[in-house]
Amino acid sequence: MSPAPLDVPAVAGRPCSVAAALEIIGDRWSLLIVREVLFGNHRFGEIARNTGAPRDRLAARLKELVAAGVLEQREYQASPPRSDYHLTKAGRDLGTVLQVLREWGDRWAVESPPVSVRHHDHELKIGGVCSVCGEPVRARDLTREMHVPDWDMAGPRAAD
Amino acid sequence: MSPAPLDVPAVAGRPCSVAAALEIIGDRWSLLIVREVLFGNHRFGEIARNTGAPRDRLAARLKELVAAGVLEQREYQASPPRSDYHLTKAGRDLGTVLQVLREWGDRWAVESPPVSVRHHDHELKIGGVCSVCGEPVRARDLTREMHVPDWDMAGPRAAD
Repeated sequence: MSPAPLDVPAVAGRPCSVAAALEIIGDRWSLLIVREVLFGNHRFGEIARNTGAPRDRLAARLKELVAAGVLEQREYQASPPRSDYHLTKAGRDLGTVLQVLREWGDRWAVESPPVSVRHHDHELKIGGVCSVCGEPVRARDLTREMHVPDWDMAGPRAAD
Repeated sequence: MSPAPLDVPAVAGRPCSVAAALEIIGDRWSLLIVREVLFGNHRFGEIARNTGAPRDRLAARLKELVAAGVLEQREYQASPPRSDYHLTKAGRDLGTVLQVLREWGDRWAVESPPVSVRHHDHELKIGGVCSVCGEPVRARDLTREMHVPDWDMAGPRAAD
């Protein structure tokens, strides 16, 4: 059974899970915030320093990510009140998104990888292989089907 | 050997391939543009209709994605001149990023998946499994190392 969806506004254009995901984490700071919390940096000041996000935009994004259910805020000191940020299950699930973005960036956007991630005794790699059958993902082996009435892969179907 | 990196501006905060990738494709329309071209919708009007992007922002994003090397523009009619958009190799490589965003969105951001993608005879799934060893990716099996002087996973190292 699937978990309950996060609170997502309707998307423009094609009904699409990618568009719905980007409504939650499509701002460029959002994934960098998740990156820092995943790295174990939970406090506002740490996240601000390590992302380089302007403090006012960071505060707004943190609030949105808590409201959306990607982060939760926990009080770690009562007086004066101080809180930090932790990933929910939905937030931890973004680890895969960060990893494939890192793989793409390592290949196409940097001279040499600034971080390496080891999985057991080898470099972690997720992209390019189907986890169901273990075979490479090639465009010619894929077929797509839209389940939304009035849309197909080319766009909205013409009204009768 | 790695291909030459796309033209990416320096990132704020932590030196990071994810941040570098998001400098190129971090705007929410960018990945939806790539989605449409991947689906075979190459023309401005098709991309505008299927993403719901405002036309002026779409025109700006298309120009940036061509300049960055994710898309290429091809003339398909000489008089009057008309061109459409195709994915470069770097652009086709974003298929993996779209797929894991779709998997996350299917799980967390929609009531039921609007599109299904079949790989051979089963539903395509990429996330959660290491393509090197075929084993699930669990946080406890990962170790990260920064290769940039003056930074570690907690942030910038204090100056001596």
